[in-house]
Amino acid sequence: MTGNTTVSIVGGTGYTGGELARLIHAHPQTNLQEITSRSEAGTPIYRKHPNLRGHIEHCFVDPVELQPCDVLFLCMPHGEAAQQIDRYIDLAPLVIDLSADFRLRDASVYKQWYKEDHPAPARLASAVYGLPELDRTALRNARLISGVGCNATAMNLALLPLARAGLIESALCDIKVGSSESGATASPGSHHPERSGAVRTYSPSGHRHSAEVIQALGEIDLDVTVTAIEMVRGVLCTAHVRPTRAINDRELWNLFSEAYADETFVRIVRDRRGLHRLPDPNVLSGSNHADVGFAIDPNSGRIIVLSAIDNLVKGAAGSAVQSMNIALGLDETLGLTFPGLHPS
Amino acid sequence: MTGNTTVSIVGGTGYTGGELARLIHAHPQTNLQEITSRSEAGTPIYRKHPNLRGHIEHCFVDPVELQPCDVLFLCMPHGEAAQQIDRYIDLAPLVIDLSADFRLRDASVYKQWYKEDHPAPARLASAVYGLPELDRTALRNARLISGVGCNATAMNLALLPLARAGLIESALCDIKVGSSESGATASPGSHHPERSGAVRTYSPSGHRHSAEVIQALGEIDLDVTVTAIEMVRGVLCTAHVRPTRAINDRELWNLFSEAYADETFVRIVRDRRGLHRLPDPNVLSGSNHADVGFAIDPNSGRIIVLSAIDNLVKGAAGSAVQSMNIALGLDETLGLTFPGLHPS
Amino acid sequence: MTGNTTVSIVGGTGYTGGELARLIHAHPQTNLQEITSRSEAGTPIYRKHPNLRGHIEHCFVDPVELQPCDVLFLCMPHGEAAQQIDRYIDLAPLVIDLSADFRLRDASVYKQWYKEDHPAPARLASAVYGLPELDRTALRNARLISGVGCNATAMNLALLPLARAGLIESALCDIKVGSSESGATASPGSHHPERSGAVRTYSPSGHRHSAEVIQALGEIDLDVTVTAIEMVRGVLCTAHVRPTRAINDRELWNLFSEAYADETFVRIVRDRRGLHRLPDPNVLSGSNHADVGFAIDPNSGRIIVLSAIDNLVKGAAGSAVQSMNIALGLDETLGLTFPGLHPS
Amino acid sequence: MTGNTTVSIVGGTGYTGGELARLIHAHPQTNLQEITSRSEAGTPIYRKHPNLRGHIEHCFVDPVELQPCDVLFLCMPHGEAAQQIDRYIDLAPLVIDLSADFRLRDASVYKQWYKEDHPAPARLASAVYGLPELDRTALRNARLISGVGCNATAMNLALLPLARAGLIESALCDIKVGSSESGATASPGSHHPERSGAVRTYSPSGHRHSAEVIQALGEIDLDVTVTAIEMVRGVLCTAHVRPTRAINDRELWNLFSEAYADETFVRIVRDRRGLHRLPDPNVLSGSNHADVGFAIDPNSGRIIVLSAIDNLVKGAAGSAVQSMNIALGLDETLGLTFPGLHPS
Repeated sequence: MTGNTTVSIVGGTGYTGGELARLIHAHPQTNLQEITSRSEAGTPIYRKHPNLRGHIEHCFVDPVELQPCDVLFLCMPHGEAAQQIDRYIDLAPLVIDLSADFRLRDASVYKQWYKEDHPAPARLASAVYGLPELDRTALRNARLISGVGCNATAMNLALLPLARAGLIESALCDIKVGSSESGATASPGSHHPERSGAVRTYSPSGHRHSAEVIQALGEIDLDVTVTAIEMVRGVLCTAHVRPTRAINDRELWNLFSEAYADETFVRIVRDRRGLHRLPDPNVLSGSNHADVGFAIDPNSGRIIVLSAIDNLVKGAAGSAVQSMNIALGLDETLGLTFPGLHPS
Repeated sequence: MTGNTTVSIVGGTGYTGGELARLIHAHPQTNLQEITSRSEAGTPIYRKHPNLRGHIEHCFVDPVELQPCDVLFLCMPHGEAAQQIDRYIDLAPLVIDLSADFRLRDASVYKQWYKEDHPAPARLASAVYGLPELDRTALRNARLISGVGCNATAMNLALLPLARAGLIESALCDIKVGSSESGATASPGSHHPERSGAVRTYSPSGHRHSAEVIQALGEIDLDVTVTAIEMVRGVLCTAHVRPTRAINDRELWNLFSEAYADETFVRIVRDRRGLHRLPDPNVLSGSNHADVGFAIDPNSGRIIVLSAIDNLVKGAAGSAVQSMNIALGLDETLGLTFPGLHPS
Repeated sequence: MTGNTTVSIVGGTGYTGGELARLIHAHPQTNLQEITSRSEAGTPIYRKHPNLRGHIEHCFVDPVELQPCDVLFLCMPHGEAAQQIDRYIDLAPLVIDLSADFRLRDASVYKQWYKEDHPAPARLASAVYGLPELDRTALRNARLISGVGCNATAMNLALLPLARAGLIESALCDIKVGSSESGATASPGSHHPERSGAVRTYSPSGHRHSAEVIQALGEIDLDVTVTAIEMVRGVLCTAHVRPTRAINDRELWNLFSEAYADETFVRIVRDRRGLHRLPDPNVLSGSNHADVGFAIDPNSGRIIVLSAIDNLVKGAAGSAVQSMNIALGLDETLGLTFPGLHPS
Repeated sequence: MTGNTTVSIVGGTGYTGGELARLIHAHPQTNLQEITSRSEAGTPIYRKHPNLRGHIEHCFVDPVELQPCDVLFLCMPHGEAAQQIDRYIDLAPLVIDLSADFRLRDASVYKQWYKEDHPAPARLASAVYGLPELDRTALRNARLISGVGCNATAMNLALLPLARAGLIESALCDIKVGSSESGATASPGSHHPERSGAVRTYSPSGHRHSAEVIQALGEIDLDVTVTAIEMVRGVLCTAHVRPTRAINDRELWNLFSEAYADETFVRIVRDRRGLHRLPDPNVLSGSNHADVGFAIDPNSGRIIVLSAIDNLVKGAAGSAVQSMNIALGLDETLGLTFPGLHPS
């Protein structure tokens, strides 16, 4: 690599687009070429992403003017990437779509969860799911990578070691999320006086990201409840797992340690002292790390696994850049070393 | 009074309407008769004001169905009350308008600040400004009362004793406000991920509420800057006053104590110990109290007056109910005794 | 009753003591007589409870000066009430202890959860658990009432209808709590820069309040995880219940509606429209209401019951006053009608 | 430079120490050698700074074990650095003290503001004030650099262009700050239920940082009021300036643009569109940027200058690293390019 991989972003006014711009700008091997917006063409991108003022001089360009590039990230509303995927594939040798359009390999599963036919089912087989911790082999030569669901990522990283060990009899994921999960468009539910301080269970059951977890981990018995809390960025997944057999703390520690021994971006957080004994998304804003910890209920034997991520980074733009690094044969951590802030 | 004063509210889906419903429901001498909404007619009012679930069974009614009542509160968007004021005056012997339409007595001043001709200038002379601490005499026989501006109220209560004593050479009010000041309608600026944690100076100068202060206190040299902070309810006005002559702490204490000696809803907060030495809107949510405190800069002689209110109560619905009590010849504090919460 | 029931509070600097003072002051049938504090004797109580400034003129008195009264509330640290209970019983015909000392009827269960011998086991049999929704009969002639655990109350009200119907095969309560649960004493974990924005699972399993739930509902299979979120007041209990048999939505609706049909302070919140479809503690600050809602996962049949309370009111001082009302033969709702605020 | 400048930090458990560790770790030309703590010697530093888990493996060492290094940062409580400065100067060719001990050049001014004799007055003359935007010449060969006051920095950067142009007749700085300004030690005032949501004016006048501003800008007429708001990191300084002569917007724009034309870390933020038209500390967390904007009150001619910083970065550790870069002859921006997060 010579440091001049050109990268463009389609649909750059949203939060995922903004995070990609931040990460690509700081990445030592990439150059941000274009960032598109239909509604904001001609506007400096710092109008939407004020942190980038003085860092990135670009203005948004109309998507019709998009030029060929080395890597193209798609950050479009649900369904749009799939409808135009042929055009984008022609523009870049590597396309990474951050919507849900290419996450599920099976068009019938897509229809089951999204209630409509997939617009480009023939592409599903070749799309690679962009969670390196799950499988990075397929990413190495991918041409079309799908970004991950943020809640799915929190669940997958919490449950992966247990699933691979056949230890999950059933798993109930109680997920706490911040307001940025709903995107950059205002709505009555995101109005600050209503959303501030809310503890709002908007999805008691049946969250779509379940499909990504079952695809990743196999047919496990999975229930998911999602509650919005006072937070902008962040996901905490509390996975309550009934194990298929009794397991002790040391065994659990070894299981998680080994599963993530080679994973730079997964930290085991399970201390006996201090204020930060278990994962907390509050220290992860801006970071690509996922923190995973666990406990065993001595009475019931239930395993409680906690995983925390920044939904916009490890749950979206960060995993996408990590996947890009792998696909390009680069050091996987390039551009992703920001450690988060404390206090914050 | 026999406890059956009927009260209706026009425009009840907003925050001021919701607070009026809460206060009128708990008021020992009033009955809530109707609460209107064009868009939500037929909907239970707890859908918009979830705290009232189980307390008030009413559904919103269409404003065309409004019946005569004893007291009518108007909570409509800017300009609408003035356009329909004749109809409302016919419906009730006492009308209290919480918009800005009848706050300024002089139609030319209105035009100067609101950039349009007043729709009902003939009514301006008879409308009484509903801040009892300023002048409760005129409220006693009022037929049309105007509600107050929330920021104006914080400024008026901070500056009134100094203005009456001729002590203000110039006053600079640096005002911190919560998100409910902008009302119940979502906008890009109120989107939770954008508004949460913001410290946003949306009005560096020229705030419209200045006009109410100058009308109330006389032609003082007044500058106003308003900054939105992380808060839902509340106003803190920091009035930096250059005095016309040197004044010491004891004299200032006496001035404020005497000015507010008979005011149930104004508390002097200026302690030498504890965490709560000066006014803080955080302890005033839901309360009709205004807290006023002060300090003198020993070097410059500048007086710093702090006043804190709940913008939706003392800055809107609470002062309106207090004015209603006076106009009806009731105990001024009826329905307004909730002391706020701590911690909160 | 003649409106002159005298009430005193032992240990009044904490948050529960402050809430009791607020409620007793506003109660139409009681007079606040004394409020004690060892460390703050002589200090005006508004120094610790700034919302009460101008409402209550009392200063804290030393507990040794406590006079006889009609009702005595005890708000002391863990273990202290039990050690001095004889003295307090002599001072008042009705004693209500808000600590955990008299919640468990069985001294051996107490020892199991609190790891020490109970200081006054003989009193346990006569203490009545102060959750009226569970059993108000015994409260009618009680001389010693125990306050409730806040998390226990959220769980009890979520699970009671299901437990009575024999529908709980297992229940997993994932509880979200605010910072006031830990009391008024500063600690490294409550330091604002550390606690603000935290999503901190401080009790993955084995929470002591489980004992109160099992005592109330019978020997159910119960797991409890508690996570502190960004909130000052409030508890949301998400009870994930595996039912003993399949149940449909209508049956569940009837079960909860009937169970709480006569309960003024329990609201069923389960709407199909609007922003406030399920319980949210954010609208309950200051209120004695508990909101209970539910959903059924159509795939797994799991029942998700949500219950929300203000931990300092329904979870502490409010239930205590409600119990006092019952014990004194008063209208149960006296002094407890504040509906909460929205927005907040 | 060869990339192996060794850096140690004395007093590393606080927030400034943690930020220095984060910045030095990410800096391409430095190696973090030691980080000391008396109370936490032997503890992994991630216990106090959980964001650094997996990034920095160091444990705290006892300060007595401190080894010689190239650059030594001192993050000790007020007064301690001055008492031991000779020892530290012997240990490293460049010492940067982040306390207030060496900020004031004049020992008598120190005594006036800090109410005690300076422990090492002979060192004051050689200490260089570490705000590069003020004067970077003296930093180039400094051996002892003083860190800056966070509020002083916000004021200095707001007022510098006006002061140099002789435009300040008087300046009144109304400053809004977050809770991390008070450091990492818990206190009753920082207890989350008390501090959360507070709008607490803890310093109505006479803030010590005024001395740094007067030293930097000359004898200006300066009043300062500081109010703590709901925020962890960040300062917004609202400087209300009466100018010595009338000035228009274009002239003001030119003045600020020219003053900061060569300053990478100062951005002029004064837009006519969008949500982010004026400085807001909310987008600066973790960033070394200072945002400066302004407006003119068309009625009074008052200039309102707003400046926003992260108090822990540009107001402390970031300016210190920037000063180190200058003193070492490095590119001034090394290790300081993180752009902040949005949304956050």
